[in-house]
Amino acid sequence: MKREELLLTKLMEYGKSDIAPFHMPGHKRQLGEQVTGAFPNPFSIDITEIEGFDNLHHAEGVLKDSMDWAAGVYGADRSWYLVNGSSSGILSAVFAAVSRNGRILMSRNCHKSAYHGVILKNLRAEYIYPQIIPELGIQGGILPEDVEKQLERFPDTEAALIVSPTYDGMVSDVKAIAETVHRHGIPLIVDEAHGAHFSFGNGVFPVSALLCGADLVIQSLHKTLPSFTQTAMIHMRRGLIQEERLEQYLQMFQSSSPSYVFMAGMESCIFEMESRGKQWMEVFGGRLRTVRRKLEALKQLRVLGAEQAGKHGIYAVDLSKLIISCRGCFRQEDGRAVTGETLGSWLREEFHLEMEMCGVDYTTAILTVMDSQESLDRLVCGLLSIDSRLRRAELQDQTELQSLPVPKICMRPGEAAEAGRCVLPLKRCAGRISTEFIYLYPPGIPIAAPGEQVTEGIIALMEQYKAMGLPVQGMADKTASSLAVAEEDF
Amino acid sequence: MKREELLLTKLMEYGKSDIAPFHMPGHKRQLGEQVTGAFPNPFSIDITEIEGFDNLHHAEGVLKDSMDWAAGVYGADRSWYLVNGSSSGILSAVFAAVSRNGRILMSRNCHKSAYHGVILKNLRAEYIYPQIIPELGIQGGILPEDVEKQLERFPDTEAALIVSPTYDGMVSDVKAIAETVHRHGIPLIVDEAHGAHFSFGNGVFPVSALLCGADLVIQSLHKTLPSFTQTAMIHMRRGLIQEERLEQYLQMFQSSSPSYVFMAGMESCIFEMESRGKQWMEVFGGRLRTVRRKLEALKQLRVLGAEQAGKHGIYAVDLSKLIISCRGCFRQEDGRAVTGETLGSWLREEFHLEMEMCGVDYTTAILTVMDSQESLDRLVCGLLSIDSRLRRAELQDQTELQSLPVPKICMRPGEAAEAGRCVLPLKRCAGRISTEFIYLYPPGIPIAAPGEQVTEGIIALMEQYKAMGLPVQGMADKTASSLAVAEEDF
Repeated sequence: MKREELLLTKLMEYGKSDIAPFHMPGHKRQLGEQVTGAFPNPFSIDITEIEGFDNLHHAEGVLKDSMDWAAGVYGADRSWYLVNGSSSGILSAVFAAVSRNGRILMSRNCHKSAYHGVILKNLRAEYIYPQIIPELGIQGGILPEDVEKQLERFPDTEAALIVSPTYDGMVSDVKAIAETVHRHGIPLIVDEAHGAHFSFGNGVFPVSALLCGADLVIQSLHKTLPSFTQTAMIHMRRGLIQEERLEQYLQMFQSSSPSYVFMAGMESCIFEMESRGKQWMEVFGGRLRTVRRKLEALKQLRVLGAEQAGKHGIYAVDLSKLIISCRGCFRQEDGRAVTGETLGSWLREEFHLEMEMCGVDYTTAILTVMDSQESLDRLVCGLLSIDSRLRRAELQDQTELQSLPVPKICMRPGEAAEAGRCVLPLKRCAGRISTEFIYLYPPGIPIAAPGEQVTEGIIALMEQYKAMGLPVQGMADKTASSLAVAEEDF
Repeated sequence: MKREELLLTKLMEYGKSDIAPFHMPGHKRQLGEQVTGAFPNPFSIDITEIEGFDNLHHAEGVLKDSMDWAAGVYGADRSWYLVNGSSSGILSAVFAAVSRNGRILMSRNCHKSAYHGVILKNLRAEYIYPQIIPELGIQGGILPEDVEKQLERFPDTEAALIVSPTYDGMVSDVKAIAETVHRHGIPLIVDEAHGAHFSFGNGVFPVSALLCGADLVIQSLHKTLPSFTQTAMIHMRRGLIQEERLEQYLQMFQSSSPSYVFMAGMESCIFEMESRGKQWMEVFGGRLRTVRRKLEALKQLRVLGAEQAGKHGIYAVDLSKLIISCRGCFRQEDGRAVTGETLGSWLREEFHLEMEMCGVDYTTAILTVMDSQESLDRLVCGLLSIDSRLRRAELQDQTELQSLPVPKICMRPGEAAEAGRCVLPLKRCAGRISTEFIYLYPPGIPIAAPGEQVTEGIIALMEQYKAMGLPVQGMADKTASSLAVAEEDF
């Protein structure tokens, strides 16, 4: 290893480049001047639990005061800083709300940390499948009536967990879902990892799940606010959550040596959002409207917007996520189809714009209060320029996300994760129980989760996806041609 | 909240003070000049998994190369960076090595994360009690014959887990323990959180557990090396560990948005230790010898050293931990007994030295390669000055750590953690099953763990400790006068 090969060197080079980040983290590599008056050298403030600096896991001093103050800002009964990301908040929420071997109802599009919670606590999971925007193959919202149906079917369910907004910014009717869940006397957990900015939305963004009646809300500060990667919060509304149990698990899923750099960064982020966020959001709202108005000139590419609300289970749309669909777009030059990857690489190479994510036929840009006017102008310019080189045509074989199979659950995910396993060629797996996840990424919704039965239909779907060049993932075998299944028949 | 009340402001003030840190983290707030050539503003290098920067949880590029290189430096078959501290490494190790509801053998002085692993996976835990240095009330090592005895008694044990070195720097005979454990065909996990510097010890420090035959070794980089708080590593020796299972759990117990600041910091730390560590260690070794030689002039205070090796299960002593015992010391002025707290506050207030930990009758200073000569001189000067004001006398009521009870295990810790509970006054708890931990901190060894039966003896011991003003902790009730016990009788 040479000094110039160090990750640090590469990161510093990237930081100095003119590439505009339309990805997480939400601080957009601004140096914190807006946030803290220039953040210091992290070594200079990186301490441990010494006299006067409290202890995150038994907070009684400055950290308790800080989290109590933050809870007030958010309108929560209690809030906790998380130094191990939203992942640790979701694990803790699942562990606090559902007893060992118990049953949870969760949306099928949950983050993997929710599945991890199910595996670690050996839960039975029942699923609510999200709606799909069929013409784009992008997931919509969760229907309250689907929640009701599953809760009636499984009356021993101990908690419900949904994702809202989705990675793509689609917000479900959390208020109606909370009412439904509460009628059954159980808590609603909302993974609002992608909606930390909602709490400072000032009318520009949808209302946070916390104010819609959710009992536990997990937000990734780093995704859309000026805070460090891996920082997050969990907010609690009292009534249906056992508080000391939640705290017990928050201690277990987070380092006993939590980073003071992270904690100071989170507090500063909230401090600035509270004191200047309203003003920032006004400016940002104006810029967003301008960007979207200018992008109305796109002829081939299509940008998802507020028009999606009211359809496909979508209650509201987070307009700071720019979902640019290139479905049905071809290059005029040579007639080749344009994928999300192609779009992303054109934007990167020609315009020095790095996107958050490139799907099969769309790419996502995350816009935050920290984006400069220059970056936004470049993004608009880049998209309009690329658009002028495209033409549209009807597609033959669309990704039919709505046809996702609903596999039979034969084993708890936790049992399957620990079961004796053998690896078989995919075509010999019909009838066997998968011990691995199988999904198309994005959107990352499991086609099969551990413990679910593989069918001829699932195998055919996987082969079809692979033939279309789509990323079938989740298995140890990166070519997706073999699968680890449970050794014994069930 | 005002700007001057922010944690960031307080940390910056502390960072600018002249207080010399004899506590973690091991970088001692040096700005990274020695390590990286001045660490940049963390916002400038804080990114996410974009093109070219790999993914910690599915490493195939720069992060895989970096971890492979690190494994080579350490002599491990594989090594992983941990962004959620040693805690996440210990949880992952326990989950990878022991099946759900299985049995683990662990030293009773394990870090709470080991107990968390037992609770989360609902294991049966059997314990090996560490030896005690009776004249100081400080824990010694783990005897290989105690390991053997327990493994014979519980042949279905799936893994053994010990702590070495202890918080106080006492190293067990890991080689003999590994041989014992391997004879039973199971893996040995060593929590070497406090011994990350052993790997670069260059003859100055004991040999790392990894080179003594342990199968999994967890090291906190931040504790004794120049790395950020919350950064750690896990090293694996192939043979008895299911590698993909370990990786699966490493993904579960760590954020899916791992910090690039942390990862770059870890890699840089190892890079510098590899390239300049030998030289640094020589200088540091010399300084340590000088400090200890000067402290031989202490007349009342007593510093633990290499003379402990060969007794009380101690195989070797980490001389970079300065354990300063004030047992039996009184102030000449007014004849009042000196506690670890008193010693710590004198050092803080008069000499601007912050200790790592203050026990009942000792205080601990952590010395690392990053300590300046000036800080070390001040430490020696402060201790000699304080020593001159003390006198010694024989104590009446010593902390008889060696008399720790071995409670009856009535329930798995994981069952107790989830059991219906009621809070009773301590004196009414005899015969009931505790759902909480009870320990004296330090040393933090459970007097009772969740699922263990409280006896009249335990209650008497707790009352005795409290009467002596010792910190009985672990319970929600901070006064230690009530305890949450399982609701139903067993």
